[in-house]
Amino acid sequence: MAPEKKALEGVEWRIRVADGSTEVPVPDMGLARKVWLRTKGLISCLGSNVWMFLKKAWDIGANDPRKVIHCFKVGLALTLVSLFYFMRPLYDGVGGNAMWALMTVVLVFEPNVGATIYKCLNRMFATFLAGFLALGVHWIASRSGDRFEPFVVGASVFLLASMATFTRFIPSIKSLFDYGAMVFILTFSFVAVSGYRVDKLFDFAHQRISTIFIGTSLCILVIILVCPIWCGQELHGLTVRNMDKLADSLDGCVTKYFTNTNGEDDKKTQGYKCVLSSKASEDSMANFARWEPSHGRFNFRHPWKQYLKIGASMRSCAYCIEALNSCINKENKAADSIKKHLSTSCLKVSSSTSSVIREVAETVKKMNKSPTVFMLIGEMNGAVEELRNDLKSLSQLLDLSTSAENKEHETPLMEIIPVVTLASILIEIAVRTEAIVSSVEELAKLAEFAAHDGKSKRSEMKDKIVPDEEKPEGKLEALQRV
Amino acid sequence: MAPEKKALEGVEWRIRVADGSTEVPVPDMGLARKVWLRTKGLISCLGSNVWMFLKKAWDIGANDPRKVIHCFKVGLALTLVSLFYFMRPLYDGVGGNAMWALMTVVLVFEPNVGATIYKCLNRMFATFLAGFLALGVHWIASRSGDRFEPFVVGASVFLLASMATFTRFIPSIKSLFDYGAMVFILTFSFVAVSGYRVDKLFDFAHQRISTIFIGTSLCILVIILVCPIWCGQELHGLTVRNMDKLADSLDGCVTKYFTNTNGEDDKKTQGYKCVLSSKASEDSMANFARWEPSHGRFNFRHPWKQYLKIGASMRSCAYCIEALNSCINKENKAADSIKKHLSTSCLKVSSSTSSVIREVAETVKKMNKSPTVFMLIGEMNGAVEELRNDLKSLSQLLDLSTSAENKEHETPLMEIIPVVTLASILIEIAVRTEAIVSSVEELAKLAEFAAHDGKSKRSEMKDKIVPDEEKPEGKLEALQRV
Repeated sequence: MAPEKKALEGVEWRIRVADGSTEVPVPDMGLARKVWLRTKGLISCLGSNVWMFLKKAWDIGANDPRKVIHCFKVGLALTLVSLFYFMRPLYDGVGGNAMWALMTVVLVFEPNVGATIYKCLNRMFATFLAGFLALGVHWIASRSGDRFEPFVVGASVFLLASMATFTRFIPSIKSLFDYGAMVFILTFSFVAVSGYRVDKLFDFAHQRISTIFIGTSLCILVIILVCPIWCGQELHGLTVRNMDKLADSLDGCVTKYFTNTNGEDDKKTQGYKCVLSSKASEDSMANFARWEPSHGRFNFRHPWKQYLKIGASMRSCAYCIEALNSCINKENKAADSIKKHLSTSCLKVSSSTSSVIREVAETVKKMNKSPTVFMLIGEMNGAVEELRNDLKSLSQLLDLSTSAENKEHETPLMEIIPVVTLASILIEIAVRTEAIVSSVEELAKLAEFAAHDGKSKRSEMKDKIVPDEEKPEGKLEALQRV
Repeated sequence: MAPEKKALEGVEWRIRVADGSTEVPVPDMGLARKVWLRTKGLISCLGSNVWMFLKKAWDIGANDPRKVIHCFKVGLALTLVSLFYFMRPLYDGVGGNAMWALMTVVLVFEPNVGATIYKCLNRMFATFLAGFLALGVHWIASRSGDRFEPFVVGASVFLLASMATFTRFIPSIKSLFDYGAMVFILTFSFVAVSGYRVDKLFDFAHQRISTIFIGTSLCILVIILVCPIWCGQELHGLTVRNMDKLADSLDGCVTKYFTNTNGEDDKKTQGYKCVLSSKASEDSMANFARWEPSHGRFNFRHPWKQYLKIGASMRSCAYCIEALNSCINKENKAADSIKKHLSTSCLKVSSSTSSVIREVAETVKKMNKSPTVFMLIGEMNGAVEELRNDLKSLSQLLDLSTSAENKEHETPLMEIIPVVTLASILIEIAVRTEAIVSSVEELAKLAEFAAHDGKSKRSEMKDKIVPDEEKPEGKLEALQRV
């Protein structure tokens, strides 16, 4: 066989030459050497892939060490629950059903406190309910005689499983008891169907309930005591971060447009995209946060739902920034004279709007009512008013240029349009920022934020500006008409 | 006690009068009557709540009967798997471990085919892998003597559970094997830890694997044979529906603004909000769809990821419609003369843009390459060009009004701004519509859409317009510069 292969290789080599390519002919290799080279290539390719994968995994861990801690927490909880197997008295206490505790830990343990508690409570409650119902069904079935018992049990499983599955489609139940419905189906069919075989059904139900109780309590202890990650705190932090990002992108976009600086801080300018894409995580965090006990500065009944409203108002602002961005990235045809004319007031509007957003972010972060926010809103509205005046004076600029018949200074309307569009989107952003402010104020009211501390610089500032901020609403309304 | 209560009631009654209210005094009631009334109130309140809940549930079922069918499918699968309990030969065949099959059905059964297959395959694969690893660990542990066995097993559980949990944080693994990682942890700790107690470990692992195999095959059979809901088909349908909604809202908004018809079809106008909020469901559907076998017009390797790109381009268009909407809903101060001047061309742009979107929706729906889409793009670009010309002529209108010193016809610039903003957002929407078209074309290329059928009206139209559509790209580029 070996000589044949050699011959074939020879043919191949000659064909290559016939191709007319200028390739330098490689020296003829033995089969073993070829296999070795190919294997080496494969191994090095595999090795580099594995290396890349490990590097990526390392980066994930290094970027957020809490993920690594979570992994060890899962290991810890599982090892603890395994004790039930290794210690004979504990094992005998639950009649050999210790695996249910193990299973509970695997299924229930989530990275954050809220989700874990939600699953634990759902699992316990659903197991109790389903256990009792299944015992009732078993009692009825056992009275109906040997012939009918399977039918009674089968029909009850069919009906209750269908009904419980249906409740998972009802939004109000889904948000609170989705996992519970699944556990209900599981436990009910388990206990009801096993009733036909397991003789000591009551013991079986009792053991399942007590092992699940052991598993869930262990999970709750580990998740709360070892480096807990609170959903509420995460949601709070995400909201603050998103506000800062919004302010940064607004500032970045407008400054980039008027100062023609390009590409230096694109990452900052694109921050609003995080706001656009964080709806799903906000929803789930708000849903889990309400299961969490009082922690840090948050009470048990902290108004988490209000964060969703704040998120929605931020997103509506981010849509406008997206439109603004499209104005800016368009091939730039605006006349420089017009840009110059409006640049001061546009920059003022954007900087005052972003400082309102930053102030509100600070309010949420510190959970203190801000003394300066109304002043800042006043400033923002003043800047908007100024921008409107500049826009009005634009027409005079146009008139002047045409009536003076000074043709070289004339600006065609087409070159005004991009800047005018940008300005009116900016005004809309200012209007939507007010919506963010009012949703944060509602949060401050609901969560009873403390008044600002008297020592801060802001309180001194406030004393000076009280007359300005008396009727912010009047100004807001004036703004809506722009 | 009864006389005391009477006396108290008397006091209460007298206090009410002292309030100075004009309430007619109710006749004094006995305790029993009071309790009866309160109970009746409670019951009727509870009854109406239950009634409302049932009505809501009924509506959910009536709006989407497939949800009801899914519930019955779960019931059916569970009843079928219960047969293993009721039939002694089957039960004995898996050594009393039939409950694993039951559990598999409950945990694995999802409303659509893709998600079910994903979970089934993950469960089987992970169970095999974990089972073999656990047997290996058990073999090593059993060699290390009675004293060290628990430590070896405990350490292996801790390490492997932590590592498997960590892989769930790596995006590429999470999207494909998230459920598998969980099942791996579950099975591995089960089998490894049970090794310390269950004597016939190999039988245990074998039974677990065979019961899971029975459960998953039953699930796959039921989900595919009884009224299947295919994730791919759903994603396809959602994309088409969203395109139609986008076109409707665009048309609706612009028509509403220029014809001043209010509130008649608000639902249609708000359709773009569905596009904004469907990212999460698109992502999960595209993720599950790739597990589905060939079904209907979709192959196994249908380019589902391309639908996400189409969705992203639709959303970028929807952001602009949101900005457009905010222009329209602002307290309207645009001059009627200007509105009139631009209305024809704006309406033309919006109607031609929406017919491009509708045509593309039709392309996706029928999975046929559209012969007219380039003509429609040409029309759209023509309309955009017209709008630009109208915008240019606006300045002449302004010049005319001032130079003729015909003061009553003068239009201040401020009254032009809203319409001009709207027009430039419209132009941006036209640009973004091209992105939708090109992402759909990529889909057509990847999924090898058939060319249109020769009999349709469109092909006749195409023959006439070939010269116009030769260079659509050139026109696109011209548009970008607006």
